[in-house]
This record gives sequence, C-alpha cells and structure tokens, in this order.
Amino acid sequence: MAQFKRIAVVGAGLIGGSILLAASRRKLAGSLACWSRSVTSREELKKFGVAEVFDSAADCVRGADLVVVTTPVDKAEETFRAIAAGLGPDALVTDAGSIKLAIQLAARHLPPANIFVGAHPMAGSEKAGAAHAAATLFEGKACFITPTGQEPRVAVERIHAFWRDLGSNTTEMDAAKHDEIVAAISHIPHASAAALMLAVASLPAFDPIAAGQGLRDATRIAAGEENLWVGILLANARHVAAGLRITEERTAELRRAIEGGDAGVLHKLLAEARIARQALDRSR
Amino acid sequence: MAQFKRIAVVGAGLIGGSILLAASRRKLAGSLACWSRSVTSREELKKFGVAEVFDSAADCVRGADLVVVTTPVDKAEETFRAIAAGLGPDALVTDAGSIKLAIQLAARHLPPANIFVGAHPMAGSEKAGAAHAAATLFEGKACFITPTGQEPRVAVERIHAFWRDLGSNTTEMDAAKHDEIVAAISHIPHASAAALMLAVASLPAFDPIAAGQGLRDATRIAAGEENLWVGILLANARHVAAGLRITEERTAELRRAIEGGDAGVLHKLLAEARIARQALDRSR
Repeated sequence: MAQFKRIAVVGAGLIGGSILLAASRRKLAGSLACWSRSVTSREELKKFGVAEVFDSAADCVRGADLVVVTTPVDKAEETFRAIAAGLGPDALVTDAGSIKLAIQLAARHLPPANIFVGAHPMAGSEKAGAAHAAATLFEGKACFITPTGQEPRVAVERIHAFWRDLGSNTTEMDAAKHDEIVAAISHIPHASAAALMLAVASLPAFDPIAAGQGLRDATRIAAGEENLWVGILLANARHVAAGLRITEERTAELRRAIEGGDAGVLHKLLAEARIARQALDRSR
Repeated sequence: MAQFKRIAVVGAGLIGGSILLAASRRKLAGSLACWSRSVTSREELKKFGVAEVFDSAADCVRGADLVVVTTPVDKAEETFRAIAAGLGPDALVTDAGSIKLAIQLAARHLPPANIFVGAHPMAGSEKAGAAHAAATLFEGKACFITPTGQEPRVAVERIHAFWRDLGSNTTEMDAAKHDEIVAAISHIPHASAAALMLAVASLPAFDPIAAGQGLRDATRIAAGEENLWVGILLANARHVAAGLRITEERTAELRRAIEGGDAGVLHKLLAEARIARQALDRSR
C-alpha cells in the first residue's frame, strides 16, 4: 500500500528510526531516505538497511513527496530552514514533536508551496536514539494530528492515513488544545518524576539496592534524555508551570496532613488519588 | 523442611494470604491457621484450602509456634492485644509491616514470654486483599529483619530462615534506620505519586484516554489502598514529611526554571535526575 513515492525522515532517532522500520515493513513508500545530525546514528541507520542515509538534511528531502521531521522540538525552526532548499514543491511535511503550537509557528519557515500538518505519536520512551527503534513502536498508540484548518483537506487526510498505516490511532485536534492535554498527561508527570528522583536521591538514607518496583515505576520517565526534554518543557512552559504549581500545592497538602497527624484529611486525599488512578486503568 | 509445627497468620490479606500459599507450597509447617477481620477475606481464605480459617484472632494463634501478624500497621497494637490470650508461651511472633519502630513499641503489648522479631518483606502491591495473593510474591524480594538486639539470637535466626524459606532475601537492620530507608524508597514516592495524580486529574484538559504509559507508571502506586497507607504515612511521619518538603522544593526549582525560560538550569536538573534514575537501574 505504497501511498508515497519517497518518504524522507529528517533527524532519525528513536521515533524517526522506528518510522523507517515500520514504513519499510509495511511498504508505505517506493523508497526511504533519512538524515541524522550524529555520525553514530547515521551508522546505526545504515545498518537498518531500509533507507538511503544522507549527511545533509537538504539532500535527504530531495525527491521526497512526504517529509517527516523528527528532530528535537527546539530544533524545529532550524530543521525547517535547513530542508527548505531541498524540498520539492509537492512535498507534504509532517512531524512527530511533543508540542504542536510552537512547531506550527516554526513551520512558517518552510517554502510557501509546502503544506505542513503537525502530528504527535504518543510513543516516546526514556530510551533515546535509533538503536532503540522498533517497527512496532506506533502499534495501537494514540497519534494526534493538529492541522490549522487552512490546509487542503486532502493533505490532512494523507497525513492521517500515513500515521494510521504506521499502526497508530489518529485523533484530530487544535494545536493549542493538544499542548494543554499533553502538559497534563506527559510534561507535568515528566517534571514531577524528575523532582521526586532528585529529592529521593538527595536523602542520606536513600539506598538504591533496597528500592522496589514502586520507586522504579514512579521515576522511570525521569531517565528521559534532557536534550529532548528541555525543549519540550520550555515550549509548553505556561501549562507545565501551572500544573507543577498545583502538584506542589497537593504535595504540601498531603505533607501538612502527615505532619499534623490528620488521618481524616490524609484518608480523603489518598482515597481521591486512588479513585483517579483506578479510573485511568479503566480508560484503557 | 517444616521448621514449625503450626504457623498462624493474623490478618490475612495480600501479604498474609501469600504467606499461607507460599508456606503451604514450600511445606514450612505441619499445619497452617489464619484469621481475617473481613468475612469476604475469610471466605477467600477458605477457598485456598491450605489453612484452618478462624473468626477470632486469639483462637487462630492457639497452638502455633510461629505467629505472623499482617494486619495494617495502625492496627498492630490492637492485634497484639487481641492475640495475647491465645498465644502459647513458646510462640515466636513476627510481622510484615512497612514501618518497624512503631510496631516494635506496639509489641510491648504481647505477653512477656513471647519473643517478637519484626520483618518487612518488600513485596507490596497496589492490589490489596487475599484475592490477589500469590505463592511467588516473596521470591527474589528483599526482606528487612529488625531485631532490637535484646532477643535470643536463635529466635532471630529462625525468623531469618522463615522469610528466606518464603523466597525472600533477608537483610538485618535497626528499626529506626529501616524506617528512614523505606521513607525514601517507598513512602515519599507513594505520597508524591498521589499528589501528582490529584494535580493532573484536577486539570481541565486532563484526558485519561490520551494518557500513555508514562503517566500510568508514574502514578501506579497511588492506586494503593488508603486504609493501609494512612497508617504507614502517619507512623513514619517525620521522615515522610521531610522528604515531601524536599520534593516540593525540587518541583518549585524545576518550575521556576521553566517559567524563567532558563534552559541551562533546567538542563542541569533534568540531567541530574536522569543520572540518578539510570543508577537505580544499574543497582538491580
């Protein structure tokens, strides 16, 4: 079901590498091309043997009718500028960034002929890099598609089809709304897990050997690559900061109940948290 | 390898039920007895078909040479008082509570003839109740043994052997030190995960359907039963409150870096958290 003549993936790490593997396995294009800034990643991508590997972003996108930008979100503008020279007038451009409003603005640096439709597959991992890529990464995962409403509908539909063909379930929404949702379900939890890890690791009695699955799960996402996450958190600063402030307040509320020996308040707060968490399981 | 004539488990839920199943499978006693406050749990325990089920705690411990108290930690004193009438003079008593100093104090309510040696198997779960019990629950898990130093050494060694025979790896330490360690690796993460769940669930944009594995893992322990956790957090209040205060401070530090657009500070904090979390993986 090759929908595209040639797909170019610009900035192939975990997400980009997985797109290449999935697109190859599912035969979504006549040919595949990719670029990565890092020599190590380019060597890794060559080993995949599924795509032509370029050492220039502009060369990578030449002749492609679909270009997928998967560089870190704070590099979006730089990447759009870099590929502009190589883009054919019919090339459709999408991305996989965890924030959408800032990337939509950055996409103004693409040539006017090229249509951009943002996307965000909910398929990250704390394991970064093409070495951890997998053809199955997107299977059964949600993927947000965030058009501005100004694009030809056919272009938006082709982007939906592309992400669905990789195995994900697409949902369309406004970029601003998207950023507010992912602040709640991803960015605030990320910063909060990092804060917990920092706090626990600083305690004199902290003993990693004794740690069970509880602490490991609660902090797993804090192992994420800071070079990716600084850009994400800053690009979504307003929502993330507001959520962290609420997290601080709820933590203080629990702490005061514990300090004051207030079993009633503590019971109420923990029950409320348990019910919310169990609702999360039921929503799967 | 029956080390005991009869083992009685007092308050058989997830932990107590698992002890019965493991002790039966591993043939650690000539016979097994148990008691649970709840009629539903007693019915569940009867279905196991491995232990005589009593509706009185004092009757349950009669004739037992090992008694394992697995009631919630804030019920320890009440349980010790309740079993006193049934305890034979040679019965050795242990427990499985998540805090140890308060339970050691509560054990003063046992008859003077009975030796108590506290234990804490690191084998909890957010799934409470005998219905979730498993014979394999303790296998490969750490188990802290917290004698006061006043007990005959042979009694302490029998408690080590009991928990090892259930499959866990025992480590001996002072009760106060234990409580400080588990604050760091379990109690502070629990309260912190609850705070995150409360904060995220209160955001208007929160959408459980969109939530990925990150939020689910970060908040999994917040699904724990509040009736167990209120007692644990209050019994270890000093360490937990101190740790939560530090968590609030580290969250505020991250928030201020995000609000101020300070990529340098944010990068430093996230890198520090990543390194600490990766060290946790290497410690397995």
